[in-house]
Amino acid sequence: MTTHYFEHPLNEKTRIYLRVESLLNQLNIAADFNDDMQHLVFYRSLFDLLEIFEQIQLKSELAKDIEKQRLTYRSWLNIDGVDQEMLLGILNDVDAVHSKLMSAERFGQSLKEDRFLSAIRQRFNLPGGSCCFDLPALHHWLHLPCDNKKADAARWMSSLLPLAEALKLWLKLTRETGQFRSRVARTGFYQSDAEEANILRLEIPMHFGVYPMISGHKNRFAIKFIDFSSGQASSNDVEFNLAVCS
Amino acid sequence: MTTHYFEHPLNEKTRIYLRVESLLNQLNIAADFNDDMQHLVFYRSLFDLLEIFEQIQLKSELAKDIEKQRLTYRSWLNIDGVDQEMLLGILNDVDAVHSKLMSAERFGQSLKEDRFLSAIRQRFNLPGGSCCFDLPALHHWLHLPCDNKKADAARWMSSLLPLAEALKLWLKLTRETGQFRSRVARTGFYQSDAEEANILRLEIPMHFGVYPMISGHKNRFAIKFIDFSSGQASSNDVEFNLAVCS
Repeated sequence: MTTHYFEHPLNEKTRIYLRVESLLNQLNIAADFNDDMQHLVFYRSLFDLLEIFEQIQLKSELAKDIEKQRLTYRSWLNIDGVDQEMLLGILNDVDAVHSKLMSAERFGQSLKEDRFLSAIRQRFNLPGGSCCFDLPALHHWLHLPCDNKKADAARWMSSLLPLAEALKLWLKLTRETGQFRSRVARTGFYQSDAEEANILRLEIPMHFGVYPMISGHKNRFAIKFIDFSSGQASSNDVEFNLAVCS
Repeated sequence: MTTHYFEHPLNEKTRIYLRVESLLNQLNIAADFNDDMQHLVFYRSLFDLLEIFEQIQLKSELAKDIEKQRLTYRSWLNIDGVDQEMLLGILNDVDAVHSKLMSAERFGQSLKEDRFLSAIRQRFNLPGGSCCFDLPALHHWLHLPCDNKKADAARWMSSLLPLAEALKLWLKLTRETGQFRSRVARTGFYQSDAEEANILRLEIPMHFGVYPMISGHKNRFAIKFIDFSSGQASSNDVEFNLAVCS
């Protein structure tokens, strides 16, 4: 049975984290440059990341959140029934990403200072603006041997590694706090309390033909299922799995 | 020897035509949906096209230009030394695309009225905005069987066929008016007259390590070659091929 996997952030900061995770994934996949269009996805993702870095102090936000996780896990040290070996492993990982994060440059700093990237960023968002006459330097770059292009991409992406590792760990630990449980949305609607939650994770069987519209904040949320073919709220009962992650 | 192929439009309308051609190509390739990211290129190209259609009366501009080509080719009928069979073939093609163009809807009309496309278009340009929580309907669509997705793409693209065919013919006939000739840019600079030209086409050997910055209009143009690694104007002689197409 095919399932639609879906995540929803319950606060603005987590919303940014999930967008950044998605952009970093796109960047990694597109950095292969193994067809004529992956560079479009690569540069778009890179420039979207730079735009986000300009809007939010991502580094300090993430450092605070990692620190919060560290305090939580430390409070479980020497508690009976807690797997201390696993706990120490997690604390080691947290320490490592936190210290790399603290010694990193402001996210995107070296990318913003890169002459080549700055030149193409200005015109990349024109509609149809990736033509050779709009971006002659980019089109020269596209004609370089694939190894050169991959080396450039690896260099640019390496400056984002402290971010990528810290975010990956924070999201992993956050997602692990929630367990999938079977739920039913009567006549397409479900609501519940969330208790300081950050992310809702849903698994929705495709045969219901619905997708979720979720509203809510860290303490309470409501899920309304929309029928894909009509675009209207579904009035059917929908069985789905839900994990509330804090 | 690897060569950097480069085109430059000498007026604003041709600039739009080349952008639209590039977007239609991207659309066609991405409509395979054969990896996790082609949909990003597909929808971006589609929405860029819609933005262009809102900015310019592309259909009437293109119809006028096709009509102009028809008059030129008609004036060669029954002229000695002109291959009449080939000429009649071209005139047939021109008549066919012109009449399809005239009976077509305003470009993008049915795409703008599509409920699904309108819903996702609004949020697609958010930085990182193609996450499931930003575009839940799109993510449901992504989970549909590949055949369904291809059928949707084919339906949307079919409404652009009169545009695609007319533009392809106009650009083909325009490009065929120019012959590549060997040229030298002394100390990285070349200028010449153009006589009502629409497109410059350049073939630049990669070993010079340069890309062109072109300024000009339909009657005169200048090409300055820029050294890719320094970002500065090149002071070397550059041998390249040039075709001036009107």
